[in-house]
Amino acid sequence: MRISHIEHLGIAVKSLKDAIPYYERVLGFECYRTEEVPDQKVKVAFFRVGETKIELLESTDPEGPIAKFIDKRGEGVHHVAFAVPTGVDNALVEMYNKGISTIDMRGRKGAEGFTIGFLHPKSTHGVLTELCERPYTGTIDL
Amino acid sequence: MRISHIEHLGIAVKSLKDAIPYYERVLGFECYRTEEVPDQKVKVAFFRVGETKIELLESTDPEGPIAKFIDKRGEGVHHVAFAVPTGVDNALVEMYNKGISTIDMRGRKGAEGFTIGFLHPKSTHGVLTELCERPYTGTIDL
Repeated sequence: MRISHIEHLGIAVKSLKDAIPYYERVLGFECYRTEEVPDQKVKVAFFRVGETKIELLESTDPEGPIAKFIDKRGEGVHHVAFAVPTGVDNALVEMYNKGISTIDMRGRKGAEGFTIGFLHPKSTHGVLTELCERPYTGTIDL
Repeated sequence: MRISHIEHLGIAVKSLKDAIPYYERVLGFECYRTEEVPDQKVKVAFFRVGETKIELLESTDPEGPIAKFIDKRGEGVHHVAFAVPTGVDNALVEMYNKGISTIDMRGRKGAEGFTIGFLHPKSTHGVLTELCERPYTGTIDL
């Protein structure tokens, strides 16, 4: 597995409507996309910061994982996503074989058409870790 | 203020000795530097991931901020540091004037000779936010 860069930081917020103005007007980023990801019970908003994105996550369900995270510890960094250009499926198998607790055993579809898979924070020193791979667009991403 | 990229992620760990092998052997990064920062009561270890660094933080004092963070919520992402090539002092004043609660009113010295200043998570939607500026080395960083 080769990690090329931090693809995004996932940050749990109570309300995109309240948080987007902070990221735009105070930090000076531009929200270039919002999207609902029903599978994860979230609405997301994206900003580019150099080669990394910030993904704000608002829960659409009081029982969803982001709502539970905020209930437990408040708004804040929820996960770190590493770009794995050589494929998420391979990387998850490699992690599993190295004794890492993988939440997913195969990649699944995430926001922006990416293939994603998570590692459990109990075996990553507390960081909920996402491995992700951009959708194939006909351009080589190595 | 212009933010160019995410300079580093600060991640609180109980022990560098335990955490460094995870980042090296499992994720495949290389620890290129360790350092003690007495001012912040930490030992730190750095890894490059694309244009961003990962800074692992181990407390050197049971009453230090990293020890208290881990006591409260376990190992995990402690802060996000944005690179501000146009200067931390200016940026802190601009943040303050925008109504943001700033922990520092002027930049101070951090690890690797960077000038750093923090914004309080209560006015950044839960993310302890560092603004940082690399030391002047004679090369232009724009």
